[in-house]
Amino acid sequence: MTKNGEHYSTLEVEGESSRTRDTKGKSPVMEAPLIGKDVGHDRDGGAAVKRGVSVIDFVVRLLALTAALAATIIMGTTDQTLPFFTQFFQFRARYYDLPTFTYFVVANAIVAAYLVLSMPFSIVTIVRPLVKAPRLILVIFDTIALTLTISAAAAAAAIVSLAHKGNTNTNWIAICQQFDNFCSRSSGAVVASFVTAVFFVLLVILSTVALKSH
Amino acid sequence: MTKNGEHYSTLEVEGESSRTRDTKGKSPVMEAPLIGKDVGHDRDGGAAVKRGVSVIDFVVRLLALTAALAATIIMGTTDQTLPFFTQFFQFRARYYDLPTFTYFVVANAIVAAYLVLSMPFSIVTIVRPLVKAPRLILVIFDTIALTLTISAAAAAAAIVSLAHKGNTNTNWIAICQQFDNFCSRSSGAVVASFVTAVFFVLLVILSTVALKSH
Repeated sequence: MTKNGEHYSTLEVEGESSRTRDTKGKSPVMEAPLIGKDVGHDRDGGAAVKRGVSVIDFVVRLLALTAALAATIIMGTTDQTLPFFTQFFQFRARYYDLPTFTYFVVANAIVAAYLVLSMPFSIVTIVRPLVKAPRLILVIFDTIALTLTISAAAAAAAIVSLAHKGNTNTNWIAICQQFDNFCSRSSGAVVASFVTAVFFVLLVILSTVALKSH
Repeated sequence: MTKNGEHYSTLEVEGESSRTRDTKGKSPVMEAPLIGKDVGHDRDGGAAVKRGVSVIDFVVRLLALTAALAATIIMGTTDQTLPFFTQFFQFRARYYDLPTFTYFVVANAIVAAYLVLSMPFSIVTIVRPLVKAPRLILVIFDTIALTLTISAAAAAAAIVSLAHKGNTNTNWIAICQQFDNFCSRSSGAVVASFVTAVFFVLLVILSTVALKSH
Protein backbone atom coordinates (compact mmCIF):
# COMPACT_ATOMS: atom_id res chain seq x y z
CA MET A 1 0.00 0.00 0.00
CA THR A 2 2.75 2.42 0.96
CA LYS A 3 4.66 1.64 -2.18
CA ASN A 4 1.59 2.29 -4.24
CA GLY A 5 1.07 5.60 -2.51
CA GLU A 6 4.64 6.69 -3.13
CA HIS A 7 4.40 5.64 -6.72
CA TYR A 8 1.27 7.62 -7.30
CA SER A 9 2.56 10.75 -5.59
CA THR A 10 5.75 10.70 -7.67
CA LEU A 11 3.64 10.51 -10.79
CA GLU A 12 1.45 13.29 -9.45
CA VAL A 13 4.38 15.62 -8.88
CA GLU A 14 5.62 14.92 -12.40
CA GLY A 15 2.23 15.75 -13.84
CA GLU A 16 2.03 18.92 -11.73
CA SER A 17 5.48 20.09 -12.64
CA SER A 18 4.93 19.66 -16.35
CA ARG A 19 1.69 21.58 -16.11
CA THR A 20 3.13 24.45 -14.14
CA ARG A 21 6.19 24.66 -16.34
CA ASP A 22 3.87 25.14 -19.27
CA THR A 23 1.90 27.94 -17.67
CA LYS A 24 4.20 29.91 -15.35
CA GLY A 25 7.65 28.31 -15.38
CA LYS A 26 7.84 28.07 -11.56
CA SER A 27 9.25 25.13 -9.61
CA PRO A 28 6.63 22.48 -8.70
CA VAL A 29 7.51 22.68 -5.00
CA MET A 30 6.68 26.38 -4.83
CA GLU A 31 3.42 25.98 -6.69
CA ALA A 32 1.45 24.09 -3.94
CA PRO A 33 -1.65 24.23 -6.19
CA LEU A 34 -4.89 25.46 -4.60
CA ILE A 35 -3.51 26.28 -1.17
CA GLY A 36 -0.81 28.48 -2.65
CA LYS A 37 -3.35 30.47 -4.65
CA ASP A 38 -5.63 30.91 -1.64
CA VAL A 39 -2.83 32.21 0.56
CA GLY A 40 -1.71 34.61 -2.15
CA HIS A 41 -5.22 35.94 -2.64
CA ASP A 42 -5.79 36.31 1.10
CA ARG A 43 -2.49 38.12 1.55
CA ASP A 44 -3.22 40.62 -1.22
CA GLY A 45 -6.72 41.33 0.13
CA GLY A 46 -5.38 41.63 3.70
CA ALA A 47 -2.64 44.02 2.58
CA ALA A 48 -5.17 46.32 0.90
CA VAL A 49 -7.38 46.43 4.01
CA LYS A 50 -4.37 46.94 6.30
CA ARG A 51 -3.02 49.72 4.07
CA GLY A 52 -6.44 51.40 4.33
CA VAL A 53 -6.32 51.09 8.15
CA SER A 54 -2.78 52.56 8.11
CA VAL A 55 -3.90 55.56 6.04
CA ILE A 56 -6.77 56.19 8.49
CA ASP A 57 -4.25 55.79 11.34
CA PHE A 58 -2.05 58.49 9.78
CA VAL A 59 -4.95 60.91 9.29
CA VAL A 60 -6.22 60.39 12.87
CA ARG A 61 -2.64 60.90 14.09
CA LEU A 62 -2.49 64.26 12.27
CA LEU A 63 -5.83 65.30 13.82
CA ALA A 64 -4.60 64.24 17.28
CA LEU A 65 -1.43 66.29 16.76
CA THR A 66 -3.52 69.35 15.84
CA ALA A 67 -5.67 68.92 18.97
CA ALA A 68 -2.66 68.35 21.26
CA LEU A 69 -0.86 71.41 19.85
CA ALA A 70 -4.03 73.48 20.25
CA ALA A 71 -4.37 72.38 23.89
CA THR A 72 -0.71 73.20 24.62
CA ILE A 73 -0.74 76.59 22.90
CA ILE A 74 -4.13 77.77 24.21
CA MET A 75 -3.20 76.90 27.81
CA GLY A 76 0.42 78.01 27.46
CA THR A 77 -0.36 81.49 26.11
CA THR A 78 -3.20 82.29 28.52
CA ASP A 79 -2.30 85.45 30.42
CA GLN A 80 -4.90 87.71 31.94
CA THR A 81 -4.09 90.76 34.03
CA LEU A 82 -7.02 92.44 35.73
CA PRO A 83 -7.30 96.22 35.30
CA PHE A 84 -6.95 96.90 39.04
CA PHE A 85 -4.45 96.01 41.76
CA THR A 86 -3.88 96.43 45.48
CA GLN A 87 -0.75 97.13 47.45
CA PHE A 88 0.03 93.44 47.83
CA PHE A 89 -1.39 91.81 44.76
CA GLN A 90 -1.30 92.36 41.08
CA PHE A 91 -4.22 90.28 39.80
CA ARG A 92 -2.70 88.29 36.99
CA ALA A 93 -3.38 84.69 36.02
CA ARG A 94 -1.10 82.50 33.94
CA TYR A 95 -0.93 78.73 33.58
CA TYR A 96 2.03 78.34 35.98
CA ASP A 97 0.04 79.86 38.82
CA LEU A 98 -1.64 76.48 39.13
CA PRO A 99 0.62 73.37 39.26
CA THR A 100 -2.06 71.28 37.55
CA PHE A 101 -2.08 73.62 34.54
CA THR A 102 1.72 73.42 34.36
CA TYR A 103 1.43 69.62 34.26
CA PHE A 104 -1.24 70.02 31.58
CA VAL A 105 1.02 72.13 29.33
CA VAL A 106 4.04 69.83 29.81
CA ALA A 107 2.02 66.63 29.24
CA ASN A 108 0.33 67.95 26.09
CA ALA A 109 3.67 69.18 24.72
CA ILE A 110 5.20 65.72 25.31
CA VAL A 111 2.20 64.07 23.61
CA ALA A 112 2.49 66.43 20.61
CA ALA A 113 6.22 65.65 20.32
CA TYR A 114 5.48 61.91 20.54
CA LEU A 115 2.86 62.23 17.78
CA VAL A 116 5.42 63.86 15.47
CA LEU A 117 7.96 61.10 16.26
CA SER A 118 5.33 58.38 15.68
CA MET A 119 4.51 59.56 12.13
CA PRO A 120 7.45 57.74 10.46
CA PHE A 121 6.24 54.47 12.04
CA SER A 122 2.74 55.15 10.76
CA ILE A 123 4.18 55.75 7.26
CA VAL A 124 6.09 52.45 7.48
CA THR A 125 2.79 50.63 8.12
CA ILE A 126 1.34 52.31 5.00
CA VAL A 127 4.31 51.34 2.81
CA ARG A 128 4.63 47.83 4.25
CA PRO A 129 1.17 46.98 5.65
CA LEU A 130 2.03 43.35 6.52
CA VAL A 131 4.92 44.10 8.90
CA LYS A 132 3.74 43.71 12.50
CA ALA A 133 6.55 45.27 14.56
CA PRO A 134 5.89 49.02 13.90
CA ARG A 135 2.17 48.52 14.54
CA LEU A 136 2.91 46.83 17.89
CA ILE A 137 5.31 49.64 18.87
CA LEU A 138 2.62 52.18 17.98
CA VAL A 139 -0.08 50.42 20.07
CA ILE A 140 2.12 50.26 23.17
CA PHE A 141 3.29 53.88 23.00
CA ASP A 142 -0.18 55.12 21.96
CA THR A 143 -1.58 53.50 25.11
CA ILE A 144 1.00 55.28 27.26
CA ALA A 145 0.39 58.60 25.44
CA LEU A 146 -3.37 58.10 25.96
CA THR A 147 -2.72 57.72 29.70
CA LEU A 148 -0.68 60.93 29.76
CA THR A 149 -3.27 62.90 27.75
CA ILE A 150 -6.30 61.81 29.74
CA SER A 151 -4.58 62.35 33.09
CA ALA A 152 -3.64 65.92 32.11
CA ALA A 153 -7.13 66.62 30.75
CA ALA A 154 -8.93 65.17 33.78
CA ALA A 155 -6.74 66.94 36.34
CA ALA A 156 -7.12 70.27 34.55
CA ALA A 157 -10.87 69.68 34.22
CA ALA A 158 -11.15 69.22 37.99
CA ILE A 159 -9.36 72.54 38.58
CA VAL A 160 -11.30 74.39 35.84
CA SER A 161 -14.55 73.14 37.36
CA LEU A 162 -13.40 74.38 40.76
CA ALA A 163 -12.46 77.76 39.27
CA HIS A 164 -15.92 78.05 37.73
CA LYS A 165 -18.05 76.87 40.63
CA GLY A 166 -15.84 76.97 43.70
CA ASN A 167 -16.63 74.72 46.66
CA THR A 168 -18.45 75.95 49.75
CA ASN A 169 -17.49 72.91 51.86
CA THR A 170 -13.80 73.69 51.61
CA ASN A 171 -14.17 77.50 51.28
CA TRP A 172 -12.54 77.46 47.85
CA ILE A 173 -14.03 80.42 46.02
CA ALA A 174 -14.81 80.57 42.31
CA ILE A 175 -12.34 82.81 40.47
CA CYS A 176 -14.00 82.87 37.04
CA GLN A 177 -16.08 85.96 37.81
CA GLN A 178 -12.81 87.91 37.80
CA PHE A 179 -10.63 85.85 35.49
CA ASP A 180 -13.27 85.23 32.82
CA ASN A 181 -10.84 85.17 29.88
CA PHE A 182 -8.39 82.92 31.74
CA CYS A 183 -11.20 80.51 32.58
CA SER A 184 -12.72 80.32 29.12
CA ARG A 185 -9.32 79.76 27.49
CA SER A 186 -8.33 77.03 29.93
CA SER A 187 -11.74 75.35 29.44
CA GLY A 188 -11.07 75.36 25.68
CA ALA A 189 -7.64 73.81 26.22
CA VAL A 190 -9.18 71.06 28.39
CA VAL A 191 -11.75 70.28 25.66
CA ALA A 192 -8.95 70.10 23.04
CA SER A 193 -7.07 67.69 25.30
CA PHE A 194 -10.12 65.44 25.71
CA VAL A 195 -10.50 65.44 21.89
CA THR A 196 -6.84 64.31 21.65
CA ALA A 197 -7.66 61.48 24.09
CA VAL A 198 -10.62 60.35 21.95
CA PHE A 199 -8.32 60.24 18.90
CA PHE A 200 -5.85 58.11 20.88
CA VAL A 201 -8.60 55.63 21.85
CA LEU A 202 -9.44 55.42 18.12
CA LEU A 203 -5.76 54.86 17.25
CA VAL A 204 -5.37 52.04 19.79
CA ILE A 205 -8.54 50.29 18.59
CA LEU A 206 -7.57 50.71 14.90
CA SER A 207 -4.10 49.24 15.42
CA THR A 208 -5.46 46.38 17.52
CA VAL A 209 -8.00 45.44 14.83
CA ALA A 210 -5.23 45.60 12.19
CA LEU A 211 -2.99 43.37 14.33
CA LYS A 212 -5.81 40.91 14.99
CA SER A 213 -6.42 40.34 11.27
CA HIS A 214 -2.76 39.44 10.67
CA MET B 1 -1.28 17.14 -20.98
CA THR B 2 -4.26 18.26 -18.95
CA LYS B 3 -5.84 14.86 -19.22
CA ASN B 4 -2.67 13.25 -17.94
CA GLY B 5 -2.54 15.60 -15.01
CA GLU B 6 -6.12 14.87 -14.07
CA HIS B 7 -5.52 11.19 -14.35
CA TYR B 8 -2.53 11.29 -12.04
CA SER B 9 -4.16 13.44 -9.43
CA THR B 10 -7.16 11.12 -9.23
CA LEU B 11 -4.80 8.25 -8.62
CA GLU B 12 -2.93 10.30 -6.03
CA VAL B 13 -6.09 10.97 -4.05
CA GLU B 14 -6.92 7.29 -4.10
CA GLY B 15 -3.45 6.40 -2.78
CA GLU B 16 -3.69 9.09 -0.11
CA SER B 17 -7.14 8.07 1.03
CA SER B 18 -6.20 4.43 1.45
CA ARG B 19 -3.11 5.43 3.43
CA THR B 20 -4.93 7.79 5.73
CA ARG B 21 -7.79 5.37 6.25
CA ASP B 22 -5.24 2.90 7.54
CA THR B 23 -3.66 5.27 10.05
CA LYS B 24 -6.24 7.75 11.24
CA GLY B 25 -9.49 7.18 9.36
CA LYS B 26 -9.74 10.84 8.36
CA SER B 27 -10.93 12.13 4.98
CA PRO B 28 -8.12 12.65 2.44
CA VAL B 29 -9.10 16.26 1.90
CA MET B 30 -8.42 17.08 5.55
CA GLU B 31 -5.02 15.35 5.57
CA ALA B 32 -3.05 17.85 3.40
CA PRO B 33 0.22 15.96 4.16
CA LEU B 34 3.28 18.02 5.17
CA ILE B 35 1.63 21.42 5.28
CA GLY B 36 -1.02 20.09 7.64
CA LYS B 37 1.60 18.80 10.05
CA ASP B 38 3.51 22.09 10.07
CA VAL B 39 0.40 24.13 10.77
CA GLY B 40 -0.57 21.70 13.53
CA HIS B 41 2.81 21.98 15.20
CA ASP B 42 2.78 25.77 14.99
CA ARG B 43 -0.75 25.91 16.34
CA ASP B 44 0.09 23.74 19.37
CA GLY B 45 3.13 25.87 20.27
CA GLY B 46 1.18 29.11 19.77
CA ALA B 47 -1.72 27.79 21.85
CA ALA B 48 0.55 27.04 24.82
CA VAL B 49 2.09 30.53 24.74
CA LYS B 50 -1.32 32.17 24.31
CA ARG B 51 -2.77 30.13 27.17
CA GLY B 52 0.10 31.35 29.34
CA VAL B 53 -0.64 34.95 28.36
CA SER B 54 -4.34 34.36 29.15
CA VAL B 55 -3.53 33.02 32.62
CA ILE B 56 -1.35 36.10 33.32
CA ASP B 57 -4.21 38.25 31.96
CA PHE B 58 -6.60 36.64 34.45
CA VAL B 59 -4.24 37.13 37.41
CA VAL B 60 -3.57 40.80 36.49
CA ARG B 61 -7.34 41.28 36.12
CA LEU B 62 -7.86 39.94 39.68
CA LEU B 63 -5.17 42.30 41.01
CA ALA B 64 -6.76 45.23 39.15
CA LEU B 65 -10.14 44.32 40.65
CA THR B 66 -8.63 44.31 44.14
CA ALA B 67 -7.05 47.74 43.57
CA ALA B 68 -10.25 49.23 42.06
CA LEU B 69 -12.37 47.89 44.94
CA ALA B 70 -9.85 49.24 47.46
CA ALA B 71 -9.97 52.68 45.80
CA THR B 72 -13.79 52.71 45.78
CA ILE B 73 -14.17 51.53 49.37
CA ILE B 74 -11.43 53.69 50.91
CA MET B 75 -12.80 56.85 49.26
CA GLY B 76 -16.45 55.87 49.73
CA THR B 77 -16.19 55.23 53.47
CA THR B 78 -14.10 58.28 54.33
CA ASP B 79 -15.98 60.36 56.87
CA GLN B 80 -14.26 62.71 59.26
CA THR B 81 -16.05 64.98 61.69
CA LEU B 82 -13.91 67.48 63.53
CA PRO B 83 -14.34 67.64 67.34
CA PHE B 84 -15.50 71.27 67.28
CA PHE B 85 -18.19 73.25 65.49
CA THR B 86 -19.52 76.79 65.15
CA GLN B 87 -23.01 78.14 64.96
CA PHE B 88 -23.06 77.79 61.17
CA PHE B 89 -20.80 74.91 60.37
CA GLN B 90 -20.32 71.41 61.53
CA PHE B 91 -16.88 70.49 60.23
CA ARG B 92 -17.42 67.19 58.51
CA ALA B 93 -15.82 65.90 55.33
CA ARG B 94 -17.17 63.10 53.16
CA TYR B 95 -16.45 62.19 49.55
CA TYR B 96 -19.62 63.80 48.21
CA ASP B 97 -18.60 67.20 49.54
CA LEU B 98 -16.31 67.39 46.51
CA PRO B 99 -17.82 66.59 43.08
CA THR B 100 -14.47 65.23 41.86
CA PHE B 101 -14.41 62.65 44.66
CA THR B 102 -17.98 61.63 43.81
CA TYR B 103 -16.86 61.06 40.20
CA PHE B 104 -13.88 59.11 41.56
CA VAL B 105 -16.08 56.74 43.59
CA VAL B 106 -18.58 56.22 40.73
CA ALA B 107 -15.84 55.68 38.10
CA ASN B 108 -13.93 53.19 40.26
CA ALA B 109 -17.14 51.30 41.08
CA ILE B 110 -17.97 51.06 37.35
CA VAL B 111 -14.43 49.85 36.61
CA ALA B 112 -14.66 47.21 39.38
CA ALA B 113 -18.00 46.00 37.99
CA TYR B 114 -16.54 45.87 34.47
CA LEU B 115 -13.59 43.81 35.74
CA VAL B 116 -15.96 41.25 37.27
CA LEU B 117 -17.95 41.08 34.00
CA SER B 118 -14.74 40.72 31.95
CA MET B 119 -13.56 37.64 33.85
CA PRO B 120 -15.69 35.14 31.86
CA PHE B 121 -14.11 36.49 28.64
CA SER B 122 -10.67 36.09 30.17
CA ILE B 123 -11.54 32.49 31.12
CA VAL B 124 -12.72 31.84 27.53
CA THR B 125 -9.28 32.91 26.26
CA ILE B 126 -7.67 30.44 28.71
CA VAL B 127 -9.94 27.55 27.62
CA ARG B 128 -9.78 28.40 23.91
CA PRO B 129 -6.53 30.36 23.46
CA LEU B 130 -6.74 30.52 19.65
CA VAL B 131 -10.10 32.32 19.44
CA LYS B 132 -9.52 35.99 18.63
CA ALA B 133 -12.93 37.61 19.27
CA PRO B 134 -12.96 37.62 23.13
CA ARG B 135 -9.40 38.97 23.20
CA LEU B 136 -10.35 41.80 20.83
CA ILE B 137 -13.43 42.65 22.93
CA LEU B 138 -11.23 42.70 26.04
CA VAL B 139 -8.64 45.06 24.47
CA ILE B 140 -11.29 47.56 23.35
CA PHE B 141 -13.14 47.64 26.67
CA ASP B 142 -9.90 47.54 28.69
CA THR B 143 -8.77 50.67 26.82
CA ILE B 144 -12.04 52.44 27.68
CA ALA B 145 -11.83 51.27 31.33
CA LEU B 146 -8.22 52.51 31.45
CA THR B 147 -9.44 55.92 30.28
CA LEU B 148 -12.11 55.99 33.00
CA THR B 149 -9.68 54.88 35.74
CA ILE B 150 -6.91 57.31 34.89
CA SER B 151 -9.30 60.25 34.50
CA ALA B 152 -10.78 59.59 37.95
CA ALA B 153 -7.34 59.13 39.51
CA ALA B 154 -5.87 62.27 37.90
CA ALA B 155 -8.83 64.50 38.75
CA ALA B 156 -8.85 63.29 42.37
CA ALA B 157 -5.06 63.71 42.54
CA ALA B 158 -5.39 67.36 41.47
CA ILE B 159 -7.94 67.99 44.25
CA VAL B 160 -5.97 66.04 46.88
CA SER B 161 -2.86 68.03 46.00
CA LEU B 162 -4.87 71.23 46.36
CA ALA B 163 -6.23 70.05 49.73
CA HIS B 164 -2.69 69.36 50.91
CA LYS B 165 -0.93 72.47 49.64
CA GLY B 166 -3.64 74.98 48.78
CA ASN B 167 -2.93 77.69 46.23
CA THR B 168 -2.04 81.24 47.20
CA ASN B 169 -2.70 82.67 43.72
CA THR B 170 -6.37 81.73 43.85
CA ASN B 171 -6.76 82.01 47.64
CA TRP B 172 -7.67 78.34 47.92
CA ILE B 173 -6.57 77.31 51.40
CA ALA B 174 -5.15 73.91 52.35
CA ILE B 175 -7.66 71.87 54.38
CA CYS B 176 -5.44 68.95 55.34
CA GLN B 177 -4.24 70.55 58.56
CA GLN B 178 -7.80 70.11 59.84
CA PHE B 179 -9.03 67.12 57.88
CA ASP B 180 -5.87 65.02 58.23
CA ASN B 181 -7.65 61.66 58.26
CA PHE B 182 -9.86 62.61 55.31
CA CYS B 183 -6.80 63.71 53.34
CA SER B 184 -4.66 60.66 54.07
CA ARG B 185 -7.49 58.27 53.20
CA SER B 186 -8.30 60.04 49.93
CA SER B 187 -4.60 60.07 49.03
CA GLY B 188 -4.54 56.31 49.60
CA ALA B 189 -7.57 55.86 47.37
CA VAL B 190 -5.91 57.90 44.60
CA VAL B 191 -2.77 55.73 44.81
CA ALA B 192 -4.93 52.56 44.59
CA SER B 193 -6.62 53.99 41.51
CA PHE B 194 -3.29 54.73 39.81
CA VAL B 195 -2.22 51.14 40.58
CA THR B 196 -5.44 49.96 38.86
CA ALA B 197 -4.50 52.09 35.84
CA VAL B 198 -1.02 50.52 35.66
CA PHE B 199 -2.64 47.05 35.68
CA PHE B 200 -4.91 48.14 32.81
CA VAL B 201 -1.92 49.34 30.75
CA LEU B 202 -0.38 45.88 31.35
CA LEU B 203 -3.64 44.15 30.29
CA VAL B 204 -3.87 46.17 27.05
CA ILE B 205 -0.23 45.44 26.14
CA LEU B 206 -0.58 41.72 27.03
CA SER B 207 -3.70 41.26 24.88
CA THR B 208 -2.16 43.20 21.99
CA VAL B 209 0.96 41.01 22.03
CA ALA B 210 -1.25 37.88 22.13
CA LEU B 211 -3.33 39.17 19.19
CA LYS B 212 -0.19 40.08 17.23
CA SER B 213 1.18 36.53 17.43
CA HIS B 214 -2.04 35.05 15.99
